[in-house]
Amino acid sequence: MNYKMICRTLGNIVTLEGALMLLPAVCALCYAEWKVALVFLCAAASASLAGFAVSRLFHKCDRTIYAREGFVIVGLAWILMSLAGAVPLVLCGDIPSPVDAFFETVSGLTTTGASILTDVTALSHGGAFWRSFTHWIGGMGVLVLMMAILSDSTGRSIHIMRAEMPGPVVDKIVPRVKDTAKILYLMYIGLTLTEVVFLLFGGMSLYEALIHSFGTAGTGGFGIRPDSIGSYSPYIQWVITVFMLLFGVNFNLYYLLLLRRFRSALRSEELHIYLCIVLVVTGIMAWNIRGVMGSAGESLRHAAFQVASIVTTTGYSSADFNLWPGLSRTLIFILLFVGGCAGSTAGGLKISRVAILFKCARREFRKLLHPRSVATVRFEGKPLDEATQTGVMRYFALYSLLLAAVILLLGGEPFDLETNVTAAISCFNNVGPGLSAVGPMGGYADYSPFAKLILSAAMLFGRLEIYPLILTFSPLTWRRK
Amino acid sequence: MNYKMICRTLGNIVTLEGALMLLPAVCALCYAEWKVALVFLCAAASASLAGFAVSRLFHKCDRTIYAREGFVIVGLAWILMSLAGAVPLVLCGDIPSPVDAFFETVSGLTTTGASILTDVTALSHGGAFWRSFTHWIGGMGVLVLMMAILSDSTGRSIHIMRAEMPGPVVDKIVPRVKDTAKILYLMYIGLTLTEVVFLLFGGMSLYEALIHSFGTAGTGGFGIRPDSIGSYSPYIQWVITVFMLLFGVNFNLYYLLLLRRFRSALRSEELHIYLCIVLVVTGIMAWNIRGVMGSAGESLRHAAFQVASIVTTTGYSSADFNLWPGLSRTLIFILLFVGGCAGSTAGGLKISRVAILFKCARREFRKLLHPRSVATVRFEGKPLDEATQTGVMRYFALYSLLLAAVILLLGGEPFDLETNVTAAISCFNNVGPGLSAVGPMGGYADYSPFAKLILSAAMLFGRLEIYPLILTFSPLTWRRK
Repeated sequence: MNYKMICRTLGNIVTLEGALMLLPAVCALCYAEWKVALVFLCAAASASLAGFAVSRLFHKCDRTIYAREGFVIVGLAWILMSLAGAVPLVLCGDIPSPVDAFFETVSGLTTTGASILTDVTALSHGGAFWRSFTHWIGGMGVLVLMMAILSDSTGRSIHIMRAEMPGPVVDKIVPRVKDTAKILYLMYIGLTLTEVVFLLFGGMSLYEALIHSFGTAGTGGFGIRPDSIGSYSPYIQWVITVFMLLFGVNFNLYYLLLLRRFRSALRSEELHIYLCIVLVVTGIMAWNIRGVMGSAGESLRHAAFQVASIVTTTGYSSADFNLWPGLSRTLIFILLFVGGCAGSTAGGLKISRVAILFKCARREFRKLLHPRSVATVRFEGKPLDEATQTGVMRYFALYSLLLAAVILLLGGEPFDLETNVTAAISCFNNVGPGLSAVGPMGGYADYSPFAKLILSAAMLFGRLEIYPLILTFSPLTWRRK
Repeated sequence: MNYKMICRTLGNIVTLEGALMLLPAVCALCYAEWKVALVFLCAAASASLAGFAVSRLFHKCDRTIYAREGFVIVGLAWILMSLAGAVPLVLCGDIPSPVDAFFETVSGLTTTGASILTDVTALSHGGAFWRSFTHWIGGMGVLVLMMAILSDSTGRSIHIMRAEMPGPVVDKIVPRVKDTAKILYLMYIGLTLTEVVFLLFGGMSLYEALIHSFGTAGTGGFGIRPDSIGSYSPYIQWVITVFMLLFGVNFNLYYLLLLRRFRSALRSEELHIYLCIVLVVTGIMAWNIRGVMGSAGESLRHAAFQVASIVTTTGYSSADFNLWPGLSRTLIFILLFVGGCAGSTAGGLKISRVAILFKCARREFRKLLHPRSVATVRFEGKPLDEATQTGVMRYFALYSLLLAAVILLLGGEPFDLETNVTAAISCFNNVGPGLSAVGPMGGYADYSPFAKLILSAAMLFGRLEIYPLILTFSPLTWRRK
């Protein structure tokens, strides 16, 4: 195990997080929140200095890393970032309880959007900005950001990228990891700014537009109003619907579009399934809620918003879907698992995994009928190799077992089963709201500190797709070869 | 496709079912229920005659069958048996609605124990006997019974046995399929009779003892009192607890015990996990419900009863666990999935599958750390081959997708999500009761006919472990080679 390189990278990450904390400090200054500004400036300075010191200390080290260093770096980096990110929220008085602040920061960084706040309007502008900004940082991944910025990343950084980026297969867009990271972040910034412009057109202030663009871009879901997006205009709701869906698409496709390779971008099987799910479920839900809503247009808008929000694991809401008819609630329950496309900022199982699972299951039919036949599974026009197939199935098995464990550990909480089960599913898939007491108008405030830590762990497991965290704490990883 | 052999076997099955209907007829005669006796006698006669005629018609046929004929025979036989078994329940007036009678018969044969009856005491003795007897028939499998009785089964019958017997791997106990089937049924009958004797000692009438022994042996769960086993004595509750657990064990182990190979029987890894789950969950649950119950002994008895009932997918209840604290309800929710040992009469995923899933998931850790390493998965002391591993994982993927489909199709029913979700899980895993409105004191009466048919399909899919039914209706199966 290359301890020096791990420490060095973690130092870099904390430095970077410190630098990013300057933005909420600026925001607080703009709103004349002097104490908040001071807290964020101090936090930024101390994080940057401490991180820089550690990074310099291990500057001269062997930069060779393998898969296991990649997992450990990602696992530790996310825990460290969550801890460091929670400090200013505690100190500025926005979230005095350390456990709550940790939960909120994990929820932000993992782009879950589950909140322990009972009154979101009581937050300072600086605190609310930081809370939403963590979505943006966590969406594309902070280690990817580091690789895009720092010049010293070697070809070995692919191990870190593979561990942090979600989805069954991580492709480099271009041969060099650093360039891939840069391109990803440029597209991410570009799309975010486009959304900001659209929201400004809708009459939002720059502050509100930034907050909601961060929440949409990272598929997070933190807002600043008690009813999420419910009291904004239909125009704004449609803009957010469209951008939620855009951020749920594999970013590789946008790169193909930039290269004018339209045909190969639009041929993506995962994209087709994703759009198909969105259209069909929106249709059914709009029809199902027509009695609750005023007009057909309103039904369609709210159905589209909620479907986009849940399938991309964003978690914004334009209406209290907890009060909708059973069929819509059931659809939302199932969608909580699915998630967006691989290589997007969305969480969940990912469309490609669900599709591969379906195809692997179907393949068994042929195998049972003709035991000696060779049946191949094709995805995205190519045959899938055995390793990817079994990898997806093993991931799903682990995912199910872990989900069962989280549900069990929440068993002692004083809530009904629907609350606990959907809370576990929602946090694990980085969605945010669940049903019943953790519905869009409810929250996680009344859970015990123990449950909040369990759910924080679930969010981290979900965002990092389980392996990095388990491997970080597995003796197998730390054993000498 | 060997159509003649399929028709011949289906004819034999219906003949056999007709013969088995003589027992409820005798029961009805004993209780002087003349109309019921007449209905069952007529049903027995017509089923036997019709089945025998078909069987004779195709007597001279090529008896060679392959895997696909095995699946089709099992799939069609179970649908046919459910239809034929429902007829006397409709005609004798016990369950006038054909859909309800079909649901109840499927629930009986698949050993689920879910009921649409609102007043189980209104049943005739003959009807109640048949209802419980279907558990016993379905528990070990009616095709296995046919193989044990008929002399003409060839070595090819293993295809039928594989399709009907649950679990990831089906072993023949002895080289000949016919002998294996015979040994299985002899042990099954022996254990059932032992339970009858124990229940008679507890003061039950022979009728009651038979009904409850059938329900326990098949891990079904139909009873004759509104509160299931709740109003019986603690002795009877303990007897049923022990026998539920016994019938959840792989029958191969009993054969090893009969051969005095005690060491290899008790070395079974699946048995250890099974007992471990039962002990640990019972302990936690007994501690959790100590406030609801009068004494520690009572807590332990009710906890043990419910754990045994749910893990073996029997579905009897000694208390209304719907009213228990959240942790116990959560444990029951998770246990609904697990199921008993492979090769037992229990439903669910099966302990061995859950264990293999866990081990396959764990194996991925090593693979990620050392991509070129060869990591083997061991189960029952032997390394598991790749085909079994991927088979189990594919089954789990298909199982999850189908479960999601069943939950979705129930979405339109006027029940809360907890009811619909646990109803789907409970029926699919052949347990019986769920939580909320389908809890132990509730039932499936208020579901729409559409939902009852969906749940009937779910029960059949669960009992036959999905593939036989899907393959029966897949064009792939019927295509010429």
